[in-house]
Amino acid sequence: MTLSGGYMGKILRVELTKGKITTEPLKEELVKPYLGAPGIGARILYDEVPAYVGALDPLNKLIFATGPVTGTMIPTAGRHTVISKSPLTGYFGDAGSGGFWGAELKFSGHDIIVVTGKSPKPVYLWIHNDNYELRDADPYWGMDARASDKAIRNDLGDKKIVVANIGEAGENMVRFACILNDEACRAAGRNGLGAVMGFMNLKAIAVRGDQKVPIADPDGVRELSREIMLHQKNNKGVKAFREGGTPSVWTTCWETGDTPSYNWANETFGEFNNSALDFPGPYETILQGNKACYNCTISCRRINVGIDDPNYKVEAGVEGPEYETEGSLGSICGVANLKAISKANDLCNLHGLDTISAGGVVGFAMECYERGLIDKNYTDGIELKFGNDLAVIDLMTKIAKRQGFGNILAEGARRAAQIIGKGAEEYAITVKGQEMPMHDPRAFQGGGPHYACAPTGADHCEGFTFGLEIGGATYPELGFNKPLNRFITKGKGKASTIMQNYMTFIHCTGVCMFADDAGGYSGVPVYLKLLKVITGDNYSVEDALTLGERVWNLKKAFNMKHGCTRAEDTLPNRLLKQPDKRAQNSVVKLDETLPEYYQVRGWDWKTGKPTKEKLISLGLNTEAQDLWT
Amino acid sequence: MTLSGGYMGKILRVELTKGKITTEPLKEELVKPYLGAPGIGARILYDEVPAYVGALDPLNKLIFATGPVTGTMIPTAGRHTVISKSPLTGYFGDAGSGGFWGAELKFSGHDIIVVTGKSPKPVYLWIHNDNYELRDADPYWGMDARASDKAIRNDLGDKKIVVANIGEAGENMVRFACILNDEACRAAGRNGLGAVMGFMNLKAIAVRGDQKVPIADPDGVRELSREIMLHQKNNKGVKAFREGGTPSVWTTCWETGDTPSYNWANETFGEFNNSALDFPGPYETILQGNKACYNCTISCRRINVGIDDPNYKVEAGVEGPEYETEGSLGSICGVANLKAISKANDLCNLHGLDTISAGGVVGFAMECYERGLIDKNYTDGIELKFGNDLAVIDLMTKIAKRQGFGNILAEGARRAAQIIGKGAEEYAITVKGQEMPMHDPRAFQGGGPHYACAPTGADHCEGFTFGLEIGGATYPELGFNKPLNRFITKGKGKASTIMQNYMTFIHCTGVCMFADDAGGYSGVPVYLKLLKVITGDNYSVEDALTLGERVWNLKKAFNMKHGCTRAEDTLPNRLLKQPDKRAQNSVVKLDETLPEYYQVRGWDWKTGKPTKEKLISLGLNTEAQDLWT
Repeated sequence: MTLSGGYMGKILRVELTKGKITTEPLKEELVKPYLGAPGIGARILYDEVPAYVGALDPLNKLIFATGPVTGTMIPTAGRHTVISKSPLTGYFGDAGSGGFWGAELKFSGHDIIVVTGKSPKPVYLWIHNDNYELRDADPYWGMDARASDKAIRNDLGDKKIVVANIGEAGENMVRFACILNDEACRAAGRNGLGAVMGFMNLKAIAVRGDQKVPIADPDGVRELSREIMLHQKNNKGVKAFREGGTPSVWTTCWETGDTPSYNWANETFGEFNNSALDFPGPYETILQGNKACYNCTISCRRINVGIDDPNYKVEAGVEGPEYETEGSLGSICGVANLKAISKANDLCNLHGLDTISAGGVVGFAMECYERGLIDKNYTDGIELKFGNDLAVIDLMTKIAKRQGFGNILAEGARRAAQIIGKGAEEYAITVKGQEMPMHDPRAFQGGGPHYACAPTGADHCEGFTFGLEIGGATYPELGFNKPLNRFITKGKGKASTIMQNYMTFIHCTGVCMFADDAGGYSGVPVYLKLLKVITGDNYSVEDALTLGERVWNLKKAFNMKHGCTRAEDTLPNRLLKQPDKRAQNSVVKLDETLPEYYQVRGWDWKTGKPTKEKLISLGLNTEAQDLWT
Repeated sequence: MTLSGGYMGKILRVELTKGKITTEPLKEELVKPYLGAPGIGARILYDEVPAYVGALDPLNKLIFATGPVTGTMIPTAGRHTVISKSPLTGYFGDAGSGGFWGAELKFSGHDIIVVTGKSPKPVYLWIHNDNYELRDADPYWGMDARASDKAIRNDLGDKKIVVANIGEAGENMVRFACILNDEACRAAGRNGLGAVMGFMNLKAIAVRGDQKVPIADPDGVRELSREIMLHQKNNKGVKAFREGGTPSVWTTCWETGDTPSYNWANETFGEFNNSALDFPGPYETILQGNKACYNCTISCRRINVGIDDPNYKVEAGVEGPEYETEGSLGSICGVANLKAISKANDLCNLHGLDTISAGGVVGFAMECYERGLIDKNYTDGIELKFGNDLAVIDLMTKIAKRQGFGNILAEGARRAAQIIGKGAEEYAITVKGQEMPMHDPRAFQGGGPHYACAPTGADHCEGFTFGLEIGGATYPELGFNKPLNRFITKGKGKASTIMQNYMTFIHCTGVCMFADDAGGYSGVPVYLKLLKVITGDNYSVEDALTLGERVWNLKKAFNMKHGCTRAEDTLPNRLLKQPDKRAQNSVVKLDETLPEYYQVRGWDWKTGKPTKEKLISLGLNTEAQDLWT
């Protein structure tokens, strides 16, 4: 039986302890129900990583997976996902990234890499079509991600090589280390998967390929691509995203109360000068231009103009900050200075830190400091008040290198709170141990069940209702003919479920969610069309949603198997109890939305588990047996 | 409210990340239902270590706990238990040790130490009565356990100091590293807790104290102690144990088929020369004398005469090998040379390896080699045939230092089998990932449910039916008026349960199980008497068994919470399917004994969980909620 179009048909297996590399065919039974990227990754992780295996354990697996559309000529088809048991949450972890690395992996003839074991010494993996080897990474160990990316490409002597790697944060197993790619510009940021790579002593994966992704209907692909590009040419959302990138949403997000400040205490510690981060306006002073990922006509990546101020020195041409980072390293820490945020952002990229968690953990520490739980003795002399931008910058390196107080923050807010004690847990704004992204669910009730129940912990990219509730989006094919009132709770459990299923499906294809978010595609049917022309398979909206639902439930089942309980499907107290002024004094009414969410999901209200019936109806019969015998 | 006699009333809390030490009172509510040692340890671990925390994680806790009788004048009252989430199994871990360390901890005024965090650099903990500090352990890091024990005592300049520490194996997080004490002579061996200590960068805990353990009835204690000593003076079992130690059981164990050989394949790889390990006889050639732990009149510890042969060089005066080690580093590896076993045993003590797992993992590797799953290329040139005693010796250091092939074996047989692949799992003879002790349950059917269901994995010290089935023991107060037929399955689920509850109770008191095993105490009532005179509290046999049952179920509940499933309550295929000639061609009939065991335990047959009713009846209401909501 031959695979559908879109797949190279090969999984690369790397066992690092003995340094053994093998390949195996990508099988139909993985492809059909799980499509690609996080879907197939979740299936492999569930099957191969039992509960007794910890995240930093040679039996954990680090999976790099593409979707069938990745590396094709479909616009925005440059995504890959990294999947592993998360050192940050202890549960299912995944993180997506753009750039060119995923496409290049396909060109090398592989859909997926599964890495396991722990190399006795630092190595990197070099894949060039059918040739692959583990090479000595001693010369690169200790280098930042940008320098080691460059050095590896130089040493291999091929300018077309694309590298995914870790910085010092990953090497030092910082629990929110990311895996960068494309010269440390793009990142599989969340869930701390860079720490897994560091634990494995794997500095980088360099790929280069000359193969083409087989497609079912070449004429159809050309036609659809042209159609998408034409649509994008005239689309307002795309234009806005091209000009302003993610920072273009800053003003709206701030005004609606979506953007948190001062470690989610919002006005408690002062009046944050939000307008200093606006685009258009202040952001333009640090903006040189934009840049595209593989085959993307949106080009939302921000290119920094470069900063000369010695306190905030940033090379011209580096990227960001994105909206999320304006929040995490900005408003969360009370910093309204785009030069400082650019600097801290650049350090995150160099060292390989997830900017969301990095800002979240510093904001947490600042609140502990302001409230007197810790003092200068504890922070190695740093005056950790909100707004101290030099402290934020300083801590990026201290965290990545686990120096002094940075070593405590390197454990993430949940663990750091335990180390600090004195009730610091109240100020650790995480879900399942992952620091929250910059979209405050007090501003849109659909965010409550989404964040509380995402198997990867607080994670906005897993598909939430921001677009429907704040962005003014509609999805007629998904049953949303008009935007939803963000303060009403009724229906939000259902809306959250649908958007999660839909977004999970998109991630599995290998195309970028921004194509959807920014209006880059002309609606849901485009995804079905592109799957048709790439793979040759027919997908209905229902098929797509069922696939997303299957993957979502599989991740959830992984969590339950690994000890995650019903009690972890919740939010930090602050969001449930402390009203947010900008969001019309709202709190998250999880008690109203969660029962509906569970009901729509077919999850057992008492145990938190997907019901046996739900699992079986999704073809997850084995999981039903695992969880319900 | 004042505590019962027997307790110093204080818990020492050590947070290593920031280097903070505090004390808190030992509370009545911990003491009453959990008594001490593994009981109180299990309670703290359950409450404080959630499922998302891995074994090698700064939020794991490493608990050193004594019982109320530890450090009193009651004979054999020198035991302490170390409790933590196990890096070997991923589940509940504990290991007991004798010597003088536990008693000295009591004299320092503490019942329990709870360590957490990860020190930024190697430290050791120095406790002298109410003074405690973390001191630089850089000078000792990399030293073996005997050398560092000596150096620390020298540097502190007090000959009465007692040290518990790790060797290189713990430092390198070998998954079956032990925690030694008393000049690397005694060990909390099992479950790899030395790796937790190494992960924490804690090289040692040195203690010295001048306080007395408060007791309820001093006259009663004197009288009972005299009574026990009188009994021991004339007791045959005690005499045999004093003369021959644990090796005195070798002949009986071998002949009944209790002692495994050749990685549990027994005769498959040859006829093992068992008589070369007999006592009396060959063992006497390596025996210089015996030695006692704290206040012990049995004195079962073996003192080696010293070996001059350069291949097997061992200093005179070192300890062992015990019976378990004759099996693991001897018959399991096909080695019938007591000099070689002495050498390998001594290396385990120096490096800090659990001898049972160390032998088990080498035996596993030998079978993989003999069957062609691995070759000399894989083993770094070692010809890993059964009987190659120099290879066994060589591997002890390679494992402890994680050199080459030793780095793979350092992960334990279960993980090593995954790395090797090719079906090697069949030859990894572990339960829940822990290598089996040297008592083959094919030789006594009560061993089946015991090993399969012990929360700590394969572990004979948790209370098994060997005595009743092979040792000829009776326990009239527990309902066993005569020894049991070892090949009959009926009643063995029940017998196993009772012996587990009973032995768990004994461990909680802080006295040595050998006092019971060897006939050192004149039966069950002695334990009730000694608790009465020490604590002032009345215990009936039923109270004692219920306490043991409570602790057992709490450990089990910990496992279920941490992802252990019903499927892990089983034994390696080999024991279920391959008949053992010496044990009258028997296999373990787990299908007959397990249902009875589950029924007597009140455990749910489908989920493996203790039933809600059982948990509540034991006062484990919170656990019932955790597991059954």
